[in-house]
Formats: sequence, structure tokens, C-alpha cells
Amino acid sequence: MVTPPIKFGILGCAGIARKVSRAITLSPNSTLYAVGSRSVEKAAKFARENGFPESAKVYGSYDAVLDDPDVDAVYIPLPTSLHIKWAVLAAQKKKHVLLEKPVALNVGELDAILEACESSGVQIMDATMWMHHPRTAKMREFLSDNSMFGELKSVLSCFTFAADKDFLENDIRVKPDLDALGALGDVGWYCIRSILWAVDFELPKSVLALRGTVLNSSGVILACSASLLWEDGKTATFHCSFLANLTMDVTVVGTNGTLHFHDFVIPFEEKKASFSTSIKSGFNELVTGWEPKPSQHTVTTELPQEALMLSEFSRLVGSIKFENAKPEKKWPMLSRKTQLVLDAVKASIERGYETVEVMN
Amino acid sequence: MVTPPIKFGILGCAGIARKVSRAITLSPNSTLYAVGSRSVEKAAKFARENGFPESAKVYGSYDAVLDDPDVDAVYIPLPTSLHIKWAVLAAQKKKHVLLEKPVALNVGELDAILEACESSGVQIMDATMWMHHPRTAKMREFLSDNSMFGELKSVLSCFTFAADKDFLENDIRVKPDLDALGALGDVGWYCIRSILWAVDFELPKSVLALRGTVLNSSGVILACSASLLWEDGKTATFHCSFLANLTMDVTVVGTNGTLHFHDFVIPFEEKKASFSTSIKSGFNELVTGWEPKPSQHTVTTELPQEALMLSEFSRLVGSIKFENAKPEKKWPMLSRKTQLVLDAVKASIERGYETVEVMN
Repeated sequence: MVTPPIKFGILGCAGIARKVSRAITLSPNSTLYAVGSRSVEKAAKFARENGFPESAKVYGSYDAVLDDPDVDAVYIPLPTSLHIKWAVLAAQKKKHVLLEKPVALNVGELDAILEACESSGVQIMDATMWMHHPRTAKMREFLSDNSMFGELKSVLSCFTFAADKDFLENDIRVKPDLDALGALGDVGWYCIRSILWAVDFELPKSVLALRGTVLNSSGVILACSASLLWEDGKTATFHCSFLANLTMDVTVVGTNGTLHFHDFVIPFEEKKASFSTSIKSGFNELVTGWEPKPSQHTVTTELPQEALMLSEFSRLVGSIKFENAKPEKKWPMLSRKTQLVLDAVKASIERGYETVEVMN
Repeated sequence: MVTPPIKFGILGCAGIARKVSRAITLSPNSTLYAVGSRSVEKAAKFARENGFPESAKVYGSYDAVLDDPDVDAVYIPLPTSLHIKWAVLAAQKKKHVLLEKPVALNVGELDAILEACESSGVQIMDATMWMHHPRTAKMREFLSDNSMFGELKSVLSCFTFAADKDFLENDIRVKPDLDALGALGDVGWYCIRSILWAVDFELPKSVLALRGTVLNSSGVILACSASLLWEDGKTATFHCSFLANLTMDVTVVGTNGTLHFHDFVIPFEEKKASFSTSIKSGFNELVTGWEPKPSQHTVTTELPQEALMLSEFSRLVGSIKFENAKPEKKWPMLSRKTQLVLDAVKASIERGYETVEVMN
């Protein structure tokens, strides 16, 4: 049975919503249906500029989007502090929720959102696009292969970008009342997710933020680092920052193999992405070269990762809408674990760099 | 004036001495002259198998090498615990000292060695080969260029290799009476050196070892990590281990640029080595790809890095011997700074992961 595409309403006209609007258009089972902004003119301009069909609804409020009975799902790219209000309301109005990251200011707020989704039977997924790239699945195969990768020992993740003066003064991500988690919530979210992904989502036992956190004058994190430790001795560290050149590294080291990729959040190119692996690496006899050398792998994709994310989200929504399926619990679980670690890093900074136990 | 090559005596027949013997042969201003071992048969076998000339001296003790008046310089690849005895003795006998790393068990021992060298007017250099690769100089240019790299913000270094069962039971690097610094002294030495190199040898203000250190049953470090912090807010972390697949990463992130290399200690190939840089990296308009993308740089070298090290060492020795020059202080300074940070990491582990100030 061919089912109609899932109809999306977008709450707000954030920059990132342009990319997601295109992804909705590219995704065969998703369609742009409505956009709401506090200014109807802004919403209309957004719809015009982002490939919305002529028939799309343009609203002067977020509420109006949620009140439209034809909207199946909403994409929420609002500032983090507004997530709890609008994601809960969306769920209560039976809208499936694609929620921009960071999903909430803390796990308490996230739990309120997840409960609302659960009691309404709607799907929630966070918009961590790289999870949906076929490269990610390919790398997962490598990490899961004991003969190639072995037992995971350590993960290093780094996501930085050099924000300009305007960003550092005006972006919502440096405002305590909007995205209070700053660089930790923005780029750090991805670092934490990459680490959890690498360890197949086993939560660390403890987290320690590392001295050197940079705060702006309002106390919002502009750069920080942390170290994570698991029960079995695995370790991970990450560094995230708005104050250094764009860098997006994940390194995963196992007993037998090593994985590197340098563009984990946004691949260098849209239609292909690479990673490198080394397996049982050693040296030649005189230790003047490597044998074997690392090898490079390239994964191509017809659809960009954000369109694949939309396709997966709409597939789940379609199953619920047309086949009476239950929401997929994997995605909210991943959001929640990411938030738990993020909260622990923040707590460690706030407590003067104490080790913080991670509680599920 | 063409001066005769510097005559080397080697103390002991360690595995690494094979590579260095070849390097002495390859280096135009160095020559293999003598080898001493506690067993004269072992020394003779070593000389036969490692390209020593027919005329080379083969001795049944280290003392005999030091007592040979024609030996200009010694290479000391003995276990770290023996460095203080033999490096001091070598200096007292007016032999220039090429000392395997880690140079000493602690900075106190190193200072005794450095004082002996200074009062004898002999050159000392540690055998950190990658410092001498032309790639290293090329990368230094990049890091020093403010318009390309900007201000350094963070360094990540990782050096691991998967030691086999025999190594973990029998190698000198897991024996508390021989190389008591274990993985920290062996692979960790390189991580620390790479970090110091990246920051142009400015010592960090403080060091914190990260929980997760693995010790063997004798208390020798098999794996550990640490975090370093500088006065101006720069940060670095490293991970070193005998328990994970061969990985050799350095990432240096500045305000304008990023440097990556994945074979920092031993290049993948002997005659060429690569690194990648990105400069003022950003995204395309819809944030679906990078602009500009990182670029790859390859540096070729006629002589392998260890032969370049020998050439530099012998050049300095020759200046002293033939031109009455003074020993170059840069090299012992680099050894000492590396040791200071190494000592601080060890102290942090021993004090239960306290932050340790680095004292010069």
C-alpha cells in the first residue's frame, strides 16, 4: 500500500530549518505542509524561499500550526529553553515531534517531553542527522566486528568551530535565556552522541569536566572538555568549542582496530563520506613503516543524511498513523542518554570539576 | 673543511639499536665504531648483523666502550633505570650522549645526567626521531603562521599499540626495576613531546591524570590519559596505552586552522609523510558540506627521520670537536620539559588524580 507522505509543520524560521525544509522536500515520504512564526510575514517569506508548495499553510503563531488537524508532525528548531513548552504542547495535540538538539535544558525537562509523547502515542526523534548517514551504519559494522575491531578501549571526539563576533554577541547559543547550554549543548551534544554511539550506547559510570572551560560574561559555556569512564575501564574524552577552527573528529580505538573520521557531523561532501580503519596494525621488521597501513572507505548516498533522517522519522510516523504501530523507543532513549551525560558534564563544571556519577 | 664522521659506540644490543645502527650507517657524518654488551658474543653477533664495518670494536662490557678513546659519542638504548649510571659515566668520559627515551625515571635523575654533560662539555640529545623529520619542520611553519593557524586552542594526542602476551610478560617496559614508567614513559613520552612541540615548548601550568589508568600486577602503567592546562587557557589531552591497536594521532586546533597527522612517531612510509591542514574552514550556504575542505600535504625525505636525527646530532658533536663550539642547549631543554610533564602525570596518578602544578 502506498501511503501519502507525512505532513510537516515547522515551528519558527531558524536557519537550520532551511536545511530541514529541503530535507523534507527530498524525502519521498515527507512533505512540507505548514510553517508558523510569530510574524506571519516572516513565515510567508520562509515558505517562499524554502520550496514550500503553493498550498502550504503559513501561520502567524506556533499554536496555529499545532491546531491544524492536517499537520502530522512538527519540526521544532526553537531555542532549547522553549522546547519543553512547545514539544509537550505538540505531543498533547497528537503531533509527532522531530526535535532539534539539544533536546532540553536538562533531563528533567526532557522527561516531561518524553512522557507527553508517550502518553499521546507520538514518535519523538532528535535531529542528530549524522546518525542516519549510511556511513554511520557502515562504521557500526566495523566497530561491532570483534575480529576487526575487538574490544573498545577509548574514544576521542572533538567538535569546534570558530564563531564570528556577531555569533558570539547575538546568537541564541550564547544567550542564557535561550540556549543556556551554549557550546556544550550545541557542539558538545554531538561529541557526547558520537562517544555513546561508539560504545553502543552504554552509559559511562562517571564524567569529569576538565579545567579550562570558557564562559561568556553571562556564564554560558563557549568551550569545554570532559573525560568519561566506564565500569569496564573504557575511557573517552571530548573537546567542544565555539572558539576554534572547524574540526569534527571522532577516533575510536579498540584492541584490534582503529576508526577515524574527520567530518562526523557534516560530511565534507553531501553525496559521499569517508572513514579510515586500521586493523591489527604493526610495523615492518626494522620499525620504519606500518604494516598493514590504514585503509580508506567511502560510502556514497543518493539522499543527504538529513533527508534520510526525515525518511526514517516519517517511516515511523507512517507506521503509527497507517498501521497502528507503536512509537520506536530507540530514538527517545538515545536522546535521553545523550542528555544524561551532558547534564553530568554541566554538573561537573558547576561543582568545580568534581567527578559526577551518571545516573540512569 | 671535510671532517671525519663521528664515531659511535652503542651500549647494549636492544632491538631499537638495530634501527639506530642502520641510521648511523645512513647518516653521512656518522659511523658505527664500537658496540658493547655484557656478552661479547652477543656484541659480535649484533655487529655482524647490523652493518658494522670489519674494523669495528666489539666489547664485552659497556665500560670498555666508554674507555675506548676513539669513541666520540655513545648511543644508550639501555633500560631507563640504567640511564643515570651510564649516561653520567659516558659524559664523565667525555663521550657525547644520544640517549633513548624516556631519558630518566624522573627529572632529578635527568638533572644529574644533564649536569654531567654540561660539566664535560658534551652534547646530549634524546632519541625522539620524529622531531627530525622534515614534515615536522613543515608542520611547525603552519602552526607558526598566524594567518593560517592563528592562536593555538587545544591539542589532542594519542599513541597506543597492542602489545602481545610476551611483551606484557617479559618486555623491559613492563618491569618495575627496568622501565618503571611503563606506557607513560614509552608511548606517553611521545604524546607529551608532541603536545609540547605543538605549543612551542611552553610548559603547561598544571596536569591532571584522568581516571582509568591500567597498571600491571607490579604497578607499572599499561595505559593512562591526562589533561594539561596552560596559563592562557590552552588545553591538551593525551591517551597512551600498550593495550589497544596501533594509533598515533596528533590533532592541533587553532583559532584559524587545524592540523592532523596520524603517524606522528613512525610515518606510515619511510620516504614520505603526510599531514592535513584546514584553514578557516566553514560550510556551504545550506550547511551540507565544507568550504574550504581540508588539504593534504606530503613531505618526502631522502634519509629516514632517524638518520636525520643522527646527522643533526653528529653535526653538533662535530662542531664541538672540530670547531670548539658549545653544546646546543635546545635538545636537553626539550628532554627536560618532556620529563617534567611526564613526572607531573605520574604524580597525579600517584596522588589519586589530583591536579599537579608543573614546576620548572
